[in-house]
Amino acid sequence: MPPLVLASDFGIVSPYPGQMELAARACGWAGDIVQLWHEWPSFRVDLGPVLLPRLVRPLPLGSVVVAVVDPGVGSDRRVVAVPWQGATWIAPDNGLLSAILGEGAPSYDLEDYRPVASSAHTFHGRDWMVAAAADFLTGRASLADLPFAPNPTMCSLPPPGLAFWDAFGNAVTTCPWEGGAAGAWWSAEGCLTQVEHFSQQPPGRLVAVRGSLGLWEVAVVEGSARQHLDGTLDLLCWKDQ
Amino acid sequence: MPPLVLASDFGIVSPYPGQMELAARACGWAGDIVQLWHEWPSFRVDLGPVLLPRLVRPLPLGSVVVAVVDPGVGSDRRVVAVPWQGATWIAPDNGLLSAILGEGAPSYDLEDYRPVASSAHTFHGRDWMVAAAADFLTGRASLADLPFAPNPTMCSLPPPGLAFWDAFGNAVTTCPWEGGAAGAWWSAEGCLTQVEHFSQQPPGRLVAVRGSLGLWEVAVVEGSARQHLDGTLDLLCWKDQ
Amino acid sequence: MPPLVLASDFGIVSPYPGQMELAARACGWAGDIVQLWHEWPSFRVDLGPVLLPRLVRPLPLGSVVVAVVDPGVGSDRRVVAVPWQGATWIAPDNGLLSAILGEGAPSYDLEDYRPVASSAHTFHGRDWMVAAAADFLTGRASLADLPFAPNPTMCSLPPPGLAFWDAFGNAVTTCPWEGGAAGAWWSAEGCLTQVEHFSQQPPGRLVAVRGSLGLWEVAVVEGSARQHLDGTLDLLCWKDQ
Repeated sequence: MPPLVLASDFGIVSPYPGQMELAARACGWAGDIVQLWHEWPSFRVDLGPVLLPRLVRPLPLGSVVVAVVDPGVGSDRRVVAVPWQGATWIAPDNGLLSAILGEGAPSYDLEDYRPVASSAHTFHGRDWMVAAAADFLTGRASLADLPFAPNPTMCSLPPPGLAFWDAFGNAVTTCPWEGGAAGAWWSAEGCLTQVEHFSQQPPGRLVAVRGSLGLWEVAVVEGSARQHLDGTLDLLCWKDQ
Repeated sequence: MPPLVLASDFGIVSPYPGQMELAARACGWAGDIVQLWHEWPSFRVDLGPVLLPRLVRPLPLGSVVVAVVDPGVGSDRRVVAVPWQGATWIAPDNGLLSAILGEGAPSYDLEDYRPVASSAHTFHGRDWMVAAAADFLTGRASLADLPFAPNPTMCSLPPPGLAFWDAFGNAVTTCPWEGGAAGAWWSAEGCLTQVEHFSQQPPGRLVAVRGSLGLWEVAVVEGSARQHLDGTLDLLCWKDQ
Repeated sequence: MPPLVLASDFGIVSPYPGQMELAARACGWAGDIVQLWHEWPSFRVDLGPVLLPRLVRPLPLGSVVVAVVDPGVGSDRRVVAVPWQGATWIAPDNGLLSAILGEGAPSYDLEDYRPVASSAHTFHGRDWMVAAAADFLTGRASLADLPFAPNPTMCSLPPPGLAFWDAFGNAVTTCPWEGGAAGAWWSAEGCLTQVEHFSQQPPGRLVAVRGSLGLWEVAVVEGSARQHLDGTLDLLCWKDQ
């Protein structure tokens, strides 16, 4: 059976990812649940087009991905479901799914799954989206039965810059190297040396690495780019080629 | 099949939650395991009555919840099992289950599950409680077969204050808003504006939010109350109404 | 069914543990996955002999353990599989499995599982090791069908010192107390009091605890040794007995 995949900006130290998983079980979902990532940068909905499709590769056929990134929780903003590449994507209608929608995928309205009598208004992931996901996964519901959500919110691609720092202190950037995208990161001393893996340069060297997400990463060999660059990419610039 | 639910103060960076899960598999538990939360505030057994029942809503029928919060590990203190709302709760006998016991649930003694020849005395969650949980979940054991644990340890409700900071920097407090509980958080400038969701106030505003756990949260709209309040609630007070 | 067990130095805040799990699902592994620990100290391959076998006790029969600790990723270094105690261990050939290999277990070469056309070279755990693990777990492959990997990399045991700080601030050390190993941690004031559990000494006391991994831990009762010792063990020394 395909998995339920959860991603959010909740933070791994919070109880909210675990509560989402427990809610899925309470909804009767007995298959796999993948806690993919809960450190999505706060409020960075604009990173959706760059990160979301890349984080889920490879994605098992039939998966349901629930992705929750603010702002908008609790308000009247819609929750939408979108079919893409054999999977169903559920997210707030705030632009997070722009890349998918931009490819022409239709957007469906999940208002029917909104809990009528829910007392709290701040945890749609647990109380709303996961219930819909369980219904899709178990076949109790189908996108074909839902109304369209016209004019979904779209956001534009983010400028070249930082997507997130990983735990090694590597800067995962918004700049793709896959698919023939051409460009390079530059410091005051010139174009950063581009490598395929760290063993190609000596320890301490600042490099641009072809990262595993298909994005350029700025890294220090056997060190921390985050420390080296004092937590910003301000001293670097990106030049298209 | 209902899940095994794990909660503790072990910290998510430690290997102990993973070791509990592996031990459950080694005990033959093949069903679901939910790693609910491992950032319970250290030694705050008194938060049990406020947090524990709220973290597990909704709780699948037949679940077994193993909750481990110190102090007392390794000493002669008992480990108890308590039935409540269709689930079985396993915890050290240090007051963590006070809310449940206060509703009249009987407490059972898990001494029979204590490993006789165990060499280490500091990881009852892995070596003791999980083994009992696996037996309850698989039907190899039943509370009805166990001796009562008379006079379980009880602790009183915590005073109004901080339960924990979540990853957004929201202060989850010990003060309920659910169930008709009445009261409010005040600053020097008056009663904190109460909201149901963040979109009701402009960014930067300090507010009291009806949180998803049924507890008041003190938050800054699109900001961090933890930073705003310098990591304490000292400048705020709670007034019953 | 036995579980797939994942351990690494990726850091729990990174998306990489979740991506490994998703890749295992995409490879068709429908059984249990245990996210054991992803805070292995960076580059400390030498801790493999001390930590790896201890972290997985108890280990279900037939488990496959995938352990990824750098350096070496992306380069020409091999990935090996080693049978030990009824389980299969998969790791880079950089010494991480020294304890197991030192007991005479044969080492097999996983070159056949190397993705030929993979574009990124920096995430062997997701793109290489997990695919092999899924094949072993499902019976699609067997170690008996693979070529030997002669002369596997070995590393020597680490000196007495810190293995890692856990979330309580306890120093888990590299010094075993199990199996009759004899020795003690000393401060300027003499031999640290040795305890089996924390309740044996008053709060604030610096002690040596028989830890749950079978290693001596340096701890402060109801406090943080990490704070007490300012993040190092420099003021302590280990004496064999």
